[in-house]
Amino acid sequence: MAAAYDPENVFAKILRGEIPSHKVYEDEVALAFMDIMPRADGHVLVIPKAPARNLLDIAPDALCALIARVQHVAKAASEAFAADGLTLQQFNESAGGQVVFHLHFHILPRIEGVALRPPGTMADSEKLKAHAEKIKAALGPFPG
Amino acid sequence: MAAAYDPENVFAKILRGEIPSHKVYEDEVALAFMDIMPRADGHVLVIPKAPARNLLDIAPDALCALIARVQHVAKAASEAFAADGLTLQQFNESAGGQVVFHLHFHILPRIEGVALRPPGTMADSEKLKAHAEKIKAALGPFPG
Repeated sequence: MAAAYDPENVFAKILRGEIPSHKVYEDEVALAFMDIMPRADGHVLVIPKAPARNLLDIAPDALCALIARVQHVAKAASEAFAADGLTLQQFNESAGGQVVFHLHFHILPRIEGVALRPPGTMADSEKLKAHAEKIKAALGPFPG
Repeated sequence: MAAAYDPENVFAKILRGEIPSHKVYEDEVALAFMDIMPRADGHVLVIPKAPARNLLDIAPDALCALIARVQHVAKAASEAFAADGLTLQQFNESAGGQVVFHLHFHILPRIEGVALRPPGTMADSEKLKAHAEKIKAALGPFPG
């Protein structure tokens, strides 16, 4: 679990603006944007701007700053989708479920009785855009 | 998702020493102990000492301190079980998969090609004790 950070990963490209994304929140330490293969409505990812590969190689200070953004976006996603619950997932290395090797937290708003959709189905871009707007509208100022 | 904290939940009882657990790490802000229904060898839980119900009601400062402990224990669990990867899960409210209503992070060391075990099977206590010892032996000093 000690592989190097690859600056050509897809999320690094999103951070550099080389690939578009449906952004929900951005500040100096983190970016939140819609997962393009959402397993639930409002499935949003929060990533650090620091070049961390996974949970184990990020500096504790940067992780602290990141989790505060995760909580901030989770509150908004939960409110925007009138969620009954929320599932947080974070995968490390292929064996742990990771596909893109830039640290990211999955925020999944959950509705009672509604299972997560199977992975791998691309969402309609207009729908993702609308969902991003919904979460943005529910975001208060960051309390940091 | 705004239910109150119930001090009679099982993890609160573990924190108060009213129920035994196989402890891995403890300091002023967090406790880590083995999940009694492990979905992978080395499945450990990290909980705050603060009475938080879930990700949304914990104070950002306490969450920051907690995630640093999660990372610390995750590194040790990963090393102790020679993991190829690691899955982090955190469930909020029943709809989100939560069963015990005290905020907790699941740390699951993962081995390539080995699926998570289905939930709900109690592990042998001696085995959990041995696994806790293994993780403790891999824990360095907390870097905080």
